[in-house]
Parts: sequence; structure tokens; C-alpha cells
Amino acid sequence: MKTITISEVEDYDGEEVTIKGWLYNRRSSGGIQFIQIRDGTGIIQGVLKEDSVGNELFEKTLDLKRESSLLVRGTVKEDERAPIGYELEVSGVEVQHSVQDDFPITPKEHGPGFLMDNRHLWIRAKGAAPVLRIRHELLQALRDFFDEKGLVATEGPILTGVSVEGTTTLFETDYFGEEAYLTQSSQLYLEATAAALDEVYWIGPVFRAEKSKTRKHLTEFWMAEAELSWVEHEENLDFQEDMVHYVVKRVANERWDELTRLDVAPESLIEMVEKPFPRITYKEAVEIVNEAGEEMEYGEDFGAPAEAALGDHFKKPVFIEAFPRELKPFYMEPMPGDERVYAADLIAPDGYGELIGGSQRIDDLDLLKQRLDEEGLPHEPYEWYLDLRRYGSVPHSGFGLGVERTIAWICGLDHVRETIPFPRQINRIYP
Amino acid sequence: MKTITISEVEDYDGEEVTIKGWLYNRRSSGGIQFIQIRDGTGIIQGVLKEDSVGNELFEKTLDLKRESSLLVRGTVKEDERAPIGYELEVSGVEVQHSVQDDFPITPKEHGPGFLMDNRHLWIRAKGAAPVLRIRHELLQALRDFFDEKGLVATEGPILTGVSVEGTTTLFETDYFGEEAYLTQSSQLYLEATAAALDEVYWIGPVFRAEKSKTRKHLTEFWMAEAELSWVEHEENLDFQEDMVHYVVKRVANERWDELTRLDVAPESLIEMVEKPFPRITYKEAVEIVNEAGEEMEYGEDFGAPAEAALGDHFKKPVFIEAFPRELKPFYMEPMPGDERVYAADLIAPDGYGELIGGSQRIDDLDLLKQRLDEEGLPHEPYEWYLDLRRYGSVPHSGFGLGVERTIAWICGLDHVRETIPFPRQINRIYP
Repeated sequence: MKTITISEVEDYDGEEVTIKGWLYNRRSSGGIQFIQIRDGTGIIQGVLKEDSVGNELFEKTLDLKRESSLLVRGTVKEDERAPIGYELEVSGVEVQHSVQDDFPITPKEHGPGFLMDNRHLWIRAKGAAPVLRIRHELLQALRDFFDEKGLVATEGPILTGVSVEGTTTLFETDYFGEEAYLTQSSQLYLEATAAALDEVYWIGPVFRAEKSKTRKHLTEFWMAEAELSWVEHEENLDFQEDMVHYVVKRVANERWDELTRLDVAPESLIEMVEKPFPRITYKEAVEIVNEAGEEMEYGEDFGAPAEAALGDHFKKPVFIEAFPRELKPFYMEPMPGDERVYAADLIAPDGYGELIGGSQRIDDLDLLKQRLDEEGLPHEPYEWYLDLRRYGSVPHSGFGLGVERTIAWICGLDHVRETIPFPRQINRIYP
Repeated sequence: MKTITISEVEDYDGEEVTIKGWLYNRRSSGGIQFIQIRDGTGIIQGVLKEDSVGNELFEKTLDLKRESSLLVRGTVKEDERAPIGYELEVSGVEVQHSVQDDFPITPKEHGPGFLMDNRHLWIRAKGAAPVLRIRHELLQALRDFFDEKGLVATEGPILTGVSVEGTTTLFETDYFGEEAYLTQSSQLYLEATAAALDEVYWIGPVFRAEKSKTRKHLTEFWMAEAELSWVEHEENLDFQEDMVHYVVKRVANERWDELTRLDVAPESLIEMVEKPFPRITYKEAVEIVNEAGEEMEYGEDFGAPAEAALGDHFKKPVFIEAFPRELKPFYMEPMPGDERVYAADLIAPDGYGELIGGSQRIDDLDLLKQRLDEEGLPHEPYEWYLDLRRYGSVPHSGFGLGVERTIAWICGLDHVRETIPFPRQINRIYP
């Protein structure tokens, strides 16, 4: 008899098989029990009739607590009422491990603190597996997009001596007597590998010791970053637009079932990422925000309500460009004769905020030194970065996409903490 | 006129094109100059004849220093003497950035300290690009193998409160007043996601504050880790064998040119990973090492000379299994009635050492608690890990492959520091 996964049942209609899994739920009614079995690939309902399986097995199964691990033997039967189209007519149950205590995560509502303390078990609950599968699909879609465009994957280090996004949100560690930081972004390193390999990307974890507790921030999160030699501002936006269009469409098509289970309509995602995305200046964005009744001044950063207003206005991803220089880090290329820089943020619809931050990078050595000075940053840890402007500097641009926010937006989740297996927030290092 | 990459020249034979790149090398002889241009995709030789291009352009080009960035216009000409089969008959050179100082990395020998200080420039030199492209191919091959087998990619956190491989090599950081460590392995977390999703993997950075300075150790390195529910020891080895066979063959076939440039014979790699790989016990391995003249006692760990002796003996990857318990971490499943555990290391040929460490994991709660106690480890930070044995425990196994050692072995490199863009070693945090 074959041991199969739940995703394979349609190939075994009418056959007797074994499924290895966990008891997800059960209800019984008189001489009949319905047990839901989950494995990594799905959930199937098994039907036990006391008449057929005998009293001993029937009673044993009735005693099993949730999440007990089982080898369930039975015959696959097509059944159009079943969510996956098939049921299992159970003929035998071998108990691998009989759970003694009630499983902490129940169908009733739990507070977020409790769920986060039990994240290692929460990931087994309804809704978690689809999100993690969508995460996998998104990351692989990003890689496929980059690979198809000829970019080379190159890794920036996690342990660094330099700050990319300012010094207030750095995690520090003692590195054999020296001070080291956890990277906030691989951008500076990708600029180096881009000068060697032309166009490069990396997808990996970055760190911000954010003291704020919002639904859009984690202290450890994943970025998909790319650096493109010889690419200037407009072409950088075209690249990002193509990328978001491709990956969201792919996730929608490949994870239609998972999205539907999360009450997301895949077709509306596909519609939302139709090209082109609007491109407006920071100044225009400030006006739209004010017209929407959210007061803000020119020169302020967008807060959550402002981002929500922009999302409501466009109902699709929108590029905000031409930011005042003082709102952005030191390395961004100035617009000619202007106090603005060639930066752009891509803002998501529905209040999910900034999905991508990108810019053209300064390629002139003297200007870059001047900007370091203006920001009060020492030259020494950046000497290698300055070298990139000493030896064959080229116009180049890049960006970083926040993986968790993108997943939260795609999946329609309230909080980014559900988009990653083990979220890290302020005061949250367990499990 | 089209702007193309060097890898595209074969489609433009006889046509005039522009190539954007960096001046890699130059020699001249009378009224003729040969300039080597590199872009991210390859190196092409451009030919400038003073008679054709005129004195002004000829002189200007003669003055250019290495790594100057250029837009080179010219006609693609097939030439069987050229390494890539084509040359460029140059008609114009637009200088993007003229380098003022001599490029620090020259064709002459440099000491490793100097090269490491200039790693951001060293990656542009001969030999570096092929290794980084092979790294990209290996990582993508691993992902494709896992995806094809139905594993789900799930990320372990970098910041953790638990130790996987002992407490002596941990990097610490202050996490909002709590002590946190940089992960040594995602294994424990993958055991949790495997209980939710059946079979999972992750490829990412891990950390060991190794005080030793060897050619096989970095403080920050990448692991490819997998955890497989319902899989026991032997099947775990089968999986690893299939994986190494697949990824090495794929790299050999897809990166034949790059390997050849590194003086590696791809066909001998393919031969080396023919299945099956020998499987011997730790005890047998100790005997082989002693027979080879490297003295070691039963109960000792393999040192570099012992690993080299094993590599020489088998001339292909070899699994060493049935290790004494005291040589291995607390979580490994004991062999029945024995002081040994279901662990296996995969040792590379040619002295590259341990490529993979893996084991079956303890699935019994009481036994796992006992092992924590025996190792003097507190239960509290591991409570969530113990929960995995409280709720639906199943036999399961997993492993971690060292990405850098695998690349060093494939590429025949002396030191793992050349296998990653920005290596981190003791006292090495720059660039």
C-alpha cells in the first residue's frame, strides 16, 4: 500500500493508501466520526464508521487529542462536498504520538501576545500554512525575475562596520574586540559587486532596532535588493514596475487556492498590478494627502495615515519621486540644480505603506565625500565605498523591497508578524 | 546602434554595437592597441588601429588607467584566436570615468591581507567573477532540488535566545535589554516549521565566533539546511546523496566555462559524485585514518589531516555515521542500546573536510529533557523546542550543508574566503 501526501489524493481515487499527518480537528455523531488530518500539503477529512472499523479503533480514535501524529490508512473517495474534492474512508489508524495536553491554539480567538509566545505551534493553525507557502512563492518569483534579467545573486555580509540607514537603529555586537553592527541593508555592498558583475541582487535578512511598535515593522526582516550598473532613475523605476507586476501576478496565479483560503481575490491582485503604475512627485503626493484631509507639510515624512490616503487615491501601487534631500540618506543622486534627489518610494494600496525604497546613487567622489561630511559621518569606515567612485565609477541605481510588507499586502493581513515564521519585534525574541 | 552585453556578441557578428564596461587590461604595439573590456558577463578584446580611429582617440585611450569605465563603440568580428571567439573593431571610446590612481589589484601576486583589505576591488579581478557565478548557480541548484522535492522554504530567525551548537562560539547582542545571540543554525526552528509543513528548508547566513584561523572557517557563513518529518536516518542520507549528486552535476554542466577558467575539469566533478557514496562508521573511519599514518584515538574528533586521509582513501564524498554521542550535540537520536547516535557527516574529497552534518533528531520528550540535563543546558529557553515533542512528535531528520566549503571544493580553491563576496574571519570586519 502506498504512503502518499494529501496533495496527491486525486491520483489515488478508489485506492487504499496511508497518509502520515496530524489530527487537525474532529467531530463525531453517533456511530460516525469525521477526523481532519493535515500534513504539509493540505487537509483531508477521514470518515470512521464504528460499524466498519470496529469498536476498539473507533474508541481509540475518539480519545485522540488535537495534533496527535498518526498514520491513517483508508480508501480515497471522490466527494464533491469535500473542500479538496476527496475524502478518506478510514480503515486503520496507527498512533505515532498521542498528545497528552490540549493543544494551546484553539479555534477560539487568542490575544496576539499568546499567539506570539506560541508561534512555534501557531504556524500549524488555519491560515498560517497558506501564508508561508505564499512567502516561498514570492521569494522564488523574485529570484526567477532577477535571474531571467541576468542579475547575479551576491551576498552582502550581516556583520558590518558601516551604517546604511542612520545610526539610531543599529544592533551592535562585540566582534573580537571591535564594534560591529547587524546590517540594515546590503546596498553599499551590492554597489561593490555591481561594479564587478554589472547587475546584482540579494534576498536576505536585515535589521533595524526600531523602538516603535507598529503593524508594519519588525526588527529583523527580509529585503530583496538589487543594484544596476549604468541604470539611471527612470529605468530603475521601470525595472521595479516590471518586477512587482511579474511577482504579484505569479503569486496570484500559482497560489490561487491559498489566496482564496485567505479570502483574497487573486484576480483583483492581478488587476491592481497592471502597468503602468502612477508616478508622482513628493510635492504632488503632499497635496493629495492634504486634499484627503490628512494634514502634512512639505518636508515631512509620510506617516501611516498619509500612506493610506495615497493608497486610497490610486488604488494601485504608486511611485513617489523627487524627494527633498533631507528626508533621505546621504548616498542619493541630487536632481540638477535642485535640493531634491532621484529617490522613489513605491507605496502600496490599502494602507500597506512603503513596499520599495530606491534611488539613483551618487557616482561622483567629491560629491559623495561632501554628503558624508554634511551628515556628520566619518570617512574611514566608508573608504571602501568611496573606492567605488575612485575606480571606474558609473551611473547606477538600486532599490530594496520589503518582503514582509509585500506579503502582508498580497495576503491582506493586518500585521507583518504573520508573514514570517518567527517574527522579531521590540521585546520579542522568543520562540 | 544597439548597446549589448559581452555575452551577447555572437548574435551581432559584423554589426556595430556599443558595449558598456570597464578597462580590464591593455597592450599596445606601434600603431595598434588591444584593450580588454570587461562587463558583468565576460571579457572581450577591442582592437584600435591608429590609422582608422585617428590620433586623438588613440592617444586618449593610451592614457586610460585600468578599471576606467567606458562606452566602447565598435564592430563585432568573429575571430577564432579570441577566447570568446569574437573581437571588437573599435571605432569610438566614450569615457564615463577616467581613473586617476593605479588600480590596487595588479596581475602580480598580492598577500592575502592586502587582498582582503581590498575585497571590494579584488572581486573585479580574474578568477573572482567565475567563483561568484558558481556560487549563484549552486544556491539556485539547491533551491531547485528542494522545491522539486516539495519542501517549503521557511526562514529561521538570525536573532535567537537559544544555542544550537554549544555556547562557546556565540556572537551576542543587546536586544532591548535582553541577551540575544546570532544563530549558529536554523535547525531547531526548522524542526518547528517541519511539524507544520512536513518538509522544509532554508538557505541563509549563520554565525560562529570561531577563534581559530583556518582555511575552512568563516565567522559568518551560509548553510543550506533541511528538516524532514517522518524521515529516519538512512532515508536522510539518501536525500543528501541525491542532493549533492544533483547540485554538483548541475554546476558542472551549467558552469562548464567558469570551471574551466578556474582550471577545474567539470567531467571529473561529475564522476566524483556518482552514486552511491560510501557509508562507513565512525569506528571504521578511525581505522582508515590510522592506517593512513594519521594517529587518532576512538572518541576524538576528526582534524584536518584525518579528513584529508579519508578524502584520499575514497576519492569521493563519504558518509561517516554512528558517532559516539559525546562528540555530537544534545538533540541527536541514540542508536538502540548503544552510546552512539544516528548522526552522519559527509566528508569531501581532497581535504575539503565536512560538507554536511546531519542526524536523526530525538523525538521523545523525556529523552530530550534528559539530554539537556546531561549537557547542563537550561530548559527554559528550549521550552518551545520541547513543545514539538509534546504535540504530535514524529521521527524526523535533517542536515546542514556548508555552502562555502562546497564551493571551495567544487572550484578547487585554497581558502573558503574566496567563495563569498565579503568574507568575515577573526579580526576581519572590513570592508
